[in-house]
Amino acid sequence: MDLNSDLGESFGAWRMGDDATMLDVVTSANVACGFHAGDPAGILTTLRAAAARGVVVGAHVGYPDLVGFGRRNMDPSSAELVADVVYQIGALQGLAAAAGTRVRYVKPHGALYNTIAHDKRQADDVISAMLSIDSSLVLMGLAGTPVLQWAQDRGLATVAEAFADRAYTPQGTLVSRREKGAVLHDPQLVAQRMLRLVESGQIEAIDGSLVALKADSICVHGDSPGAVAMAQQVRVTLEVAGVALQSFVPGGQR
Amino acid sequence: MDLNSDLGESFGAWRMGDDATMLDVVTSANVACGFHAGDPAGILTTLRAAAARGVVVGAHVGYPDLVGFGRRNMDPSSAELVADVVYQIGALQGLAAAAGTRVRYVKPHGALYNTIAHDKRQADDVISAMLSIDSSLVLMGLAGTPVLQWAQDRGLATVAEAFADRAYTPQGTLVSRREKGAVLHDPQLVAQRMLRLVESGQIEAIDGSLVALKADSICVHGDSPGAVAMAQQVRVTLEVAGVALQSFVPGGQR
Amino acid sequence: MDLNSDLGESFGAWRMGDDATMLDVVTSANVACGFHAGDPAGILTTLRAAAARGVVVGAHVGYPDLVGFGRRNMDPSSAELVADVVYQIGALQGLAAAAGTRVRYVKPHGALYNTIAHDKRQADDVISAMLSIDSSLVLMGLAGTPVLQWAQDRGLATVAEAFADRAYTPQGTLVSRREKGAVLHDPQLVAQRMLRLVESGQIEAIDGSLVALKADSICVHGDSPGAVAMAQQVRVTLEVAGVALQSFVPGGQR
Amino acid sequence: MDLNSDLGESFGAWRMGDDATMLDVVTSANVACGFHAGDPAGILTTLRAAAARGVVVGAHVGYPDLVGFGRRNMDPSSAELVADVVYQIGALQGLAAAAGTRVRYVKPHGALYNTIAHDKRQADDVISAMLSIDSSLVLMGLAGTPVLQWAQDRGLATVAEAFADRAYTPQGTLVSRREKGAVLHDPQLVAQRMLRLVESGQIEAIDGSLVALKADSICVHGDSPGAVAMAQQVRVTLEVAGVALQSFVPGGQR
Repeated sequence: MDLNSDLGESFGAWRMGDDATMLDVVTSANVACGFHAGDPAGILTTLRAAAARGVVVGAHVGYPDLVGFGRRNMDPSSAELVADVVYQIGALQGLAAAAGTRVRYVKPHGALYNTIAHDKRQADDVISAMLSIDSSLVLMGLAGTPVLQWAQDRGLATVAEAFADRAYTPQGTLVSRREKGAVLHDPQLVAQRMLRLVESGQIEAIDGSLVALKADSICVHGDSPGAVAMAQQVRVTLEVAGVALQSFVPGGQR
Repeated sequence: MDLNSDLGESFGAWRMGDDATMLDVVTSANVACGFHAGDPAGILTTLRAAAARGVVVGAHVGYPDLVGFGRRNMDPSSAELVADVVYQIGALQGLAAAAGTRVRYVKPHGALYNTIAHDKRQADDVISAMLSIDSSLVLMGLAGTPVLQWAQDRGLATVAEAFADRAYTPQGTLVSRREKGAVLHDPQLVAQRMLRLVESGQIEAIDGSLVALKADSICVHGDSPGAVAMAQQVRVTLEVAGVALQSFVPGGQR
Repeated sequence: MDLNSDLGESFGAWRMGDDATMLDVVTSANVACGFHAGDPAGILTTLRAAAARGVVVGAHVGYPDLVGFGRRNMDPSSAELVADVVYQIGALQGLAAAAGTRVRYVKPHGALYNTIAHDKRQADDVISAMLSIDSSLVLMGLAGTPVLQWAQDRGLATVAEAFADRAYTPQGTLVSRREKGAVLHDPQLVAQRMLRLVESGQIEAIDGSLVALKADSICVHGDSPGAVAMAQQVRVTLEVAGVALQSFVPGGQR
Repeated sequence: MDLNSDLGESFGAWRMGDDATMLDVVTSANVACGFHAGDPAGILTTLRAAAARGVVVGAHVGYPDLVGFGRRNMDPSSAELVADVVYQIGALQGLAAAAGTRVRYVKPHGALYNTIAHDKRQADDVISAMLSIDSSLVLMGLAGTPVLQWAQDRGLATVAEAFADRAYTPQGTLVSRREKGAVLHDPQLVAQRMLRLVESGQIEAIDGSLVALKADSICVHGDSPGAVAMAQQVRVTLEVAGVALQSFVPGGQR
């Protein structure tokens, strides 16, 4: 099982998250590329820390909306979106080379992540961008959404991810953040949920029912001390239960 | 002899230059990378046009100053400048791959260009950035300035360029734009000056004396109809005189 | 009748439009505020030219999307949109004071303009912003759309505008730019249409029928030599027919 | 005596400082204007909190360098700098009006602050900007530097400030941050130094000598829990000693 987290999200004088600590927890690092977060010097620092620990690097590409942190819907044209994604992947590839590592996968961020889960036009744009720069890149997307199949149909490898700290509907989709109980806060509970997911392929939905969910990676957060502690708890719980934590990329970061 | 020009400098709804026409004139394209000019979709369009014509592509890296077009001095730290340059080269590499071509050289832009011609700290940062991402990249710099030697000392190949439309001092440096006569406007005169430079290695200084100038590339501009006409005149004059126009990169864009 | 145009849309080294010429044509200037276009120094130059000619100034507020020129839909929260609009109006008020004039009205730009014509939430945010900074500001909006009534209901004065170079449906709405014939190019025809609009309150729809349209201002464009010529033709045609061209603001720019 | 602090420096998803707490400590708030820090919605929140407490508001204007937090030297032209400063003051005036308060003074930030302390050209540009938008604005600058006189010579009122947590040279200038001991960390010591400054007009220099320093305001920081505690200690120490803490603006925020 793979553990991934969003990193490299500081910007200039503004800190976000504790990348060094999280890089000791995760096996895959979704690194910001400068459009929704991340400045080149800070990204490079994070990439060097990832390289030193053998953590696999992915490009966390987003909409060009720094003040909105890439969380606001936008409607770029296909020409714009394809080029924006290529630009971000390329920039991260360059910084990764300087850090002695490589970009192995792409995980869209925020509003772009949510949009391409279901919007075929924007999904196709992201897929086209990946194919045009490096067809060996893996697309990480939300478990249970059509974007994964769309990518596979065009020849990309994919990774389905589950969110450790989010509640699920009986249909296996995420409970909207606007609903009560959408975000889970108890590290023990979250860790046990993830252990069940790994061992049985099932997750307990918000109504108590069990839902089948096929996930190759678990997303943990590190943007607060509590989030880091939860991520650590997930890792420890899985390790104690004998679950091997490793990147979905054969051969890891090389 | 190589002819180069600054391209990809449009930004969103704002047009600058006539890239398609200039790509029929030059053998090397200094393509903006988004920090001083250029948006991803526009850059990609220019790269595709360069690839279609076999024009060699270089990264025209600049300070992060869109409103100032990279023409204002800034004092980034070394960590910032190295990462900024790597980021820009990487982004252009990504877009170049999508366009079916490659980035073969780096030409700093505007204030960064002028600063590294003489400022060893910032020059070393640019050189370090190039070495860290691709040590086969060529640095294009101002003929007669120390940056070329600094780069060679660290193992980079270099290309010295002369400016077609600029007056030179008897010492072989550019006459400041603030001085009268610094910019030349007569296409015939400019073309003849460049022909002499290619044939004899000399350029007529502003005081009428002849100065030796070793140049591997001639920079022509395309940001106005008059500039395009001048660039075309330089090319025709050199071709008629039997000067072979070709990139300084062995094997061209491949 | 008022004639308005979008001005101050240059950005740094990038020119757009011929503001000086257009300021001799129009009676109201929609001046960009830096979010979709316009840099402070360029805006100030345009404001001084407007002040010198007695042209009334409005704030052309937009989404924070420079590379997209404010033409892409975004979904800011109400807190964001209200503050963004206040910020832009305030910035323009400051520059207008420095230029010896005042901001008398607000015309949203691009995607924001189209959105608030029908989207009550975002319309209310713009209205709230205007009320919070200066309740005497006038809202300029698309003739025939509900935003004008929404603004009046909350106490703002409004101005309805028609577009000189756009085709209309038999329902009095704009023909989408994606449809053939949506944009008109014949200056004589356009000028005659506007004269009919002023004299009879009717405009010929794309199917040849006549539609009633109540407009207080006519929007002309200046982003190309042809656009400027058309704007001049509209002005001349109206003047020759004895139509008084003057701002909708009592007392003009004062 | 006035206490001031830099506020409104969060940006989008990135938090900086604890504005609500600091607004209970200070009498003047230097509020970021969006060029080096601050987004409109965040600035508006801070302004409302300042208005609710009767804290006087100043415009903390900076260079347009978000990623560098305005701390990097730039060399804008006079036309650019004047317009940039007017734009920022205007934007803050607009948001202040929406928050029910007013902008009463201007304190340049970071590199611009340091530059205008001694660089007459850029100082004059800032002064010109202030005069062009509201000649009743007060300029806050570093005690002992010529910018204060330059501003007075052109008719602006000025406020000289001392830094609570910085060491001073025997000449009354700040010890460079690059030198050891430049920044003080002991809240008690800092508070006692400020009390002496208020009571005797003297500050102990880094060599132990006493230097005369005329200060109208003391700058305290709030960008870390330790900084907030120090600011609170300064306030309490001054209050216990009977020093009246109040804005330098007659009538306060009105």
